[in-house]
Amino acid sequence: MKNRITELFGIRLPIVQAGMIWCSGWRLASAVSNAGGLGLIGAGSMYPDVLRQHIRKCKAATSLPFGVNVPLLYPNIEDHMQIIVEEKVPIVFTSAGNPGTWTPLLKEKGIKVVHVIANRKFAKKAAESGVDAIVAEGFEAGGHNGREETTTLCLIPLIRDCTDLPLIAAGGIGDGRSMLACFALGAEAVQVGSRFVASAESSAHELFKQTVIQTQEGDTQLSLKKLTPVRLVKNKFYREVEAAEARCADEIELKNLLGRGRAKKGMFEGDLEEGELEIGQVAYGIRDILPAGDIVQQMWTEFRKEQQQIANLEL
Amino acid sequence: MKNRITELFGIRLPIVQAGMIWCSGWRLASAVSNAGGLGLIGAGSMYPDVLRQHIRKCKAATSLPFGVNVPLLYPNIEDHMQIIVEEKVPIVFTSAGNPGTWTPLLKEKGIKVVHVIANRKFAKKAAESGVDAIVAEGFEAGGHNGREETTTLCLIPLIRDCTDLPLIAAGGIGDGRSMLACFALGAEAVQVGSRFVASAESSAHELFKQTVIQTQEGDTQLSLKKLTPVRLVKNKFYREVEAAEARCADEIELKNLLGRGRAKKGMFEGDLEEGELEIGQVAYGIRDILPAGDIVQQMWTEFRKEQQQIANLEL
Repeated sequence: MKNRITELFGIRLPIVQAGMIWCSGWRLASAVSNAGGLGLIGAGSMYPDVLRQHIRKCKAATSLPFGVNVPLLYPNIEDHMQIIVEEKVPIVFTSAGNPGTWTPLLKEKGIKVVHVIANRKFAKKAAESGVDAIVAEGFEAGGHNGREETTTLCLIPLIRDCTDLPLIAAGGIGDGRSMLACFALGAEAVQVGSRFVASAESSAHELFKQTVIQTQEGDTQLSLKKLTPVRLVKNKFYREVEAAEARCADEIELKNLLGRGRAKKGMFEGDLEEGELEIGQVAYGIRDILPAGDIVQQMWTEFRKEQQQIANLEL
Repeated sequence: MKNRITELFGIRLPIVQAGMIWCSGWRLASAVSNAGGLGLIGAGSMYPDVLRQHIRKCKAATSLPFGVNVPLLYPNIEDHMQIIVEEKVPIVFTSAGNPGTWTPLLKEKGIKVVHVIANRKFAKKAAESGVDAIVAEGFEAGGHNGREETTTLCLIPLIRDCTDLPLIAAGGIGDGRSMLACFALGAEAVQVGSRFVASAESSAHELFKQTVIQTQEGDTQLSLKKLTPVRLVKNKFYREVEAAEARCADEIELKNLLGRGRAKKGMFEGDLEEGELEIGQVAYGIRDILPAGDIVQQMWTEFRKEQQQIANLEL
């Protein structure tokens, strides 16, 4: 497919695999890039030296473009950015922070920069900072999430109407139908997270993958709104947060309850009771664990089929 | 357009105007039906004799099909249903209750029955009860809302995959782009609420209409989750609920705070501070009050334009 996003990244298909903590290392990123999409390494759960290894292994595993996702609130951000520049990573997605801080430096180094936003204010900030494209992510997405709770269906047209930048939709996209829906809303590509958590190459723990494919309607909830809102599976840890919130626990109590390392414990180590399990609502429809390349190909095949059905509507 | 929904209702365009309390009387319903869509009278805010007047005025104002929306928890439900049968209303949408209670009687009288759901469980219940079609409504919708918080983007494919019934999407649809997106997800028509609140023929108070077209991102919130979840504009009343919830008010306190008649006060009488103002997230993109017929025509024109763009994508 030829559009602004595929040309910007030099990829064949407008499917970006989200750079997710604990789930997306070099195996997943390179598999997606080799299938024609854009694979992203999730730096948010990696120490600098770990990130460097993943970048090198990714380069060895694919000759095609890939990128790194960097949450801007990450404590080792300077080290991460230095490694990204040194290793000549061609594309960086930034999130959770001010796009103005790093975009100019990265652009100066010839790196394509994309920023993730959840409202118009940050879309405009990202545009002003000089990014090459924007990811707009809705309420149904897994993990950390915007405070406005605007859903993807409502968010994409709002962002489309406030900036001419190339636009990637995220949140609630797991098949060719939802991908096509986002194109109808004005997106030029999609970023897909949850569907790739349940892939063979994802570094998520096998027990977490099994949880994802068994998730039913209502089994995830945007939680911890007094801290940073995050969509979680309703497991034992979530129930403890819910109980604390129901007795009006304050931020300090919630922070203590959350503690440190819960996301790793849940998603990487497979502690389904005590860990944080971040996944999107789209998991309600994911019922199998597939090779990432097959996921890309299935989405694209379904997208084309649905596109034909829409083209053939009798108006 | 020819599909199962337009043929079921005998309408020209697959656009249903939601039967909303305090906003959709005979003027709005007949205007939408005259424009080729399906107009619905919202019985939920009408005494039986008022409903009968609205039905008769609607019949006088249009020779085209229209319907009535009946929330099944309404106290005067038997009277409402009797009037609907006596007045030979051709189409009834039911919501907020068990579809099994009234569907058989209405069907026996030759009335087309559609039930509004927000999850698979009720979609199956509706199918078993013999309804002719289903409305699946997502989290972004205004007013009362499902507990699972599943967004329209995630809900429509789930429902499409669990029933062959004709499917109408609702929640977050206010223009031709979101309409087309819902068709990509598997819907065969859309139900549109908020966009028609901001119409000339809506019976919403002028001050409420002005509020709708000034709504910004994050200005609505799903509230009162301990009672029945309802999406409200964040006005003074909402802030009081929020403060009560923040101090862990119980259901009884919240019920007392809610009291009676707040929806009428806000939406019909224009008390923007003390009233309940029910509107969907899609209001963030609505910036003008138009005749309902123009809204139908604009949506349809944009739908066709976007459909062509999707058809012409270079794959």
